[in-house]
Amino acid sequence: MQETFDMNKQAHMRMEKYPPMVNLDGSVTFKLKAPLAHSVQIEPLNGQPENNGYNGLGRGIYDLTRDDSGMWSITTPPAVPGLHTYWLVVDGVRVNDTTSKTYGSQIMQACGVEIPEPGVNFYDIKNVPHGEVRMKWYYSKITNMWRRAYVYFPAEYDANPEKRYPVLILRHGGGEDETGWVEQGRANFILDNLIAENKAVPMIVVMDWGQAPVPGMRVHIPSTPPPQEIIDITINELIPMIDASYRTIPDREYRAMAGLSMGSVQTLYIGLQNLDYFSALGIFSRRPMDENEFNLEHSFGGVFQRPEELNRKLHLFWWGAGTAEEGIYYGVKKNLSELASVGINSVFVEFPGTAHEWQTWRKSLHDFAPRLFRWTEAK
Amino acid sequence: MQETFDMNKQAHMRMEKYPPMVNLDGSVTFKLKAPLAHSVQIEPLNGQPENNGYNGLGRGIYDLTRDDSGMWSITTPPAVPGLHTYWLVVDGVRVNDTTSKTYGSQIMQACGVEIPEPGVNFYDIKNVPHGEVRMKWYYSKITNMWRRAYVYFPAEYDANPEKRYPVLILRHGGGEDETGWVEQGRANFILDNLIAENKAVPMIVVMDWGQAPVPGMRVHIPSTPPPQEIIDITINELIPMIDASYRTIPDREYRAMAGLSMGSVQTLYIGLQNLDYFSALGIFSRRPMDENEFNLEHSFGGVFQRPEELNRKLHLFWWGAGTAEEGIYYGVKKNLSELASVGINSVFVEFPGTAHEWQTWRKSLHDFAPRLFRWTEAK
Repeated sequence: MQETFDMNKQAHMRMEKYPPMVNLDGSVTFKLKAPLAHSVQIEPLNGQPENNGYNGLGRGIYDLTRDDSGMWSITTPPAVPGLHTYWLVVDGVRVNDTTSKTYGSQIMQACGVEIPEPGVNFYDIKNVPHGEVRMKWYYSKITNMWRRAYVYFPAEYDANPEKRYPVLILRHGGGEDETGWVEQGRANFILDNLIAENKAVPMIVVMDWGQAPVPGMRVHIPSTPPPQEIIDITINELIPMIDASYRTIPDREYRAMAGLSMGSVQTLYIGLQNLDYFSALGIFSRRPMDENEFNLEHSFGGVFQRPEELNRKLHLFWWGAGTAEEGIYYGVKKNLSELASVGINSVFVEFPGTAHEWQTWRKSLHDFAPRLFRWTEAK
Repeated sequence: MQETFDMNKQAHMRMEKYPPMVNLDGSVTFKLKAPLAHSVQIEPLNGQPENNGYNGLGRGIYDLTRDDSGMWSITTPPAVPGLHTYWLVVDGVRVNDTTSKTYGSQIMQACGVEIPEPGVNFYDIKNVPHGEVRMKWYYSKITNMWRRAYVYFPAEYDANPEKRYPVLILRHGGGEDETGWVEQGRANFILDNLIAENKAVPMIVVMDWGQAPVPGMRVHIPSTPPPQEIIDITINELIPMIDASYRTIPDREYRAMAGLSMGSVQTLYIGLQNLDYFSALGIFSRRPMDENEFNLEHSFGGVFQRPEELNRKLHLFWWGAGTAEEGIYYGVKKNLSELASVGINSVFVEFPGTAHEWQTWRKSLHDFAPRLFRWTEAK
């Protein structure tokens, strides 16, 4: 251990940090002072096989080039709009940039860079009434652990102490946690804007943690089917806790669930096997399932064998994907044509050019939320 | 850009990540696979001069040693308990470990490792009623920007719709943001536990963002005096917004303010010049001030010239520091003896062995909060 503390060196290093610079054409310039490194790279995330190694920031890994001063840099081609996660790779080691907030969960943290989409502002913070997001801790007897949920309330909630609200349960993806839909997805601003424009019914949005480890254990890897604990927590602990704590309308007609990626698989397993609890499901960017996983005869308790019941109970069975998440896009279209072949209704919305990233899921929520609970308006 | 995406390599790299391991004696083992790196170091943060380059994880920078497989590792000496922030330094470049959540603000993010303190659990999540932390967005006309505050409500708040509550404004330090007191400081759990044991009065705790940049500008560096905008936002925007939005008791006797480090300087400047708004101030780990900054004649609007008024209005003028943040510790003691020499009352609490870190501030809040608002109980 070096006992000498060189403040000048430290101050110097501090000045040599450069956050990623987003250029007007959507390209991004990365710079890093690293005179001693052999190689510096930028690795966009979400390079899973079902996503064809694609992230809106690029495909594969960027090699930065070094100048005589030891400054490494690169300017990418114009990126797809949205929030792209990436790692710095210094001499082959994946690390995070100290100039970036990181996103993720217990599994792995990554940096993020946001590329604005010209003319698109539905997820911006605007001069409209803003709802609160409350952190709610609750005890799970199933896992013997305290859990934290983020819960969005429409701006009008506190001013209408007699009014009760419908509930959307909104699930994150693998490698994320209960903060994802707010900090990356901007779900609260999307709802604020939709509600302010009367495009969505004021609703409570529950964003629970999508993992169910027992104390001392590390998190589950996304799996199919999801851990039984996640199903049981949702039905037997989360929903009763929310209905007991807040002014909800505790009725399936006023309760929906949606999720992205891992959360969409959870939504299928939880929702389709508990239709007495939900009248709408949203399946955002579900990864490809093989013929055994998605099977008209036996999957999800055999619910696809009863199309009439499913159509009657689910007023909305919404699916969406970005066209750049090709494996997912074609996998979902294939499954939906199978559902159509047995008369099961669904809605499919595609988002041109977006990948397995938050821009796809922001747009999914923006399309999905306005359709919710319209069926209750006559009641 | 490499067009080939090697999943096996990626999966392999993923498995070679090791979160810091806290050993039973409080030492920490860091491991990183980096066969191509020349050097790998761990740099504890908070090495500012006023802190004597000290952080409970160590003084200076640790050099990791490499084995034949390219695995770098080190086990530190036993660390002081608490949450210690650090950077990885790979070939001279400060970066963050992808296995760690990061903490900070717009200035710079850093990793964290938590060392338990044997027998100390006042900041743990326990089987007691838990209050909510709400994210509250509000518009600042002073900076023409939306701002976010975190607001803690005692667990009983929703169940007592007629009851009003006192307010503590709690300020973070330089390089942090409105999330710090919850995500690092565990202020909500500290209050939950104190309130459950009847050791503190149920209160609302407002944790606002301590920066006041205008759009497009990067954040202020901690300065003395703080930017006038921070003073104006607190008095003219934050307090009226909180009093209008929640069931507070909008009276100076029921309003206190405290802050750590940069936030303690803001507390001095805002609080001492606005004694009609506050009846208690908490000054946690204030950095040393020179004779011009802390001056009995002219500082803070000359308030120290009126000891009788100050003593009458401030029912509690609480100061605290860890003994390991030596510059701060001795600087505060010197200033408090100056205050005593002119008859100004204060309370000083020291925390043995803790540095300019969250363990000092958790203990500060834990000592400070129970003393608050006792003077209102006769009313």
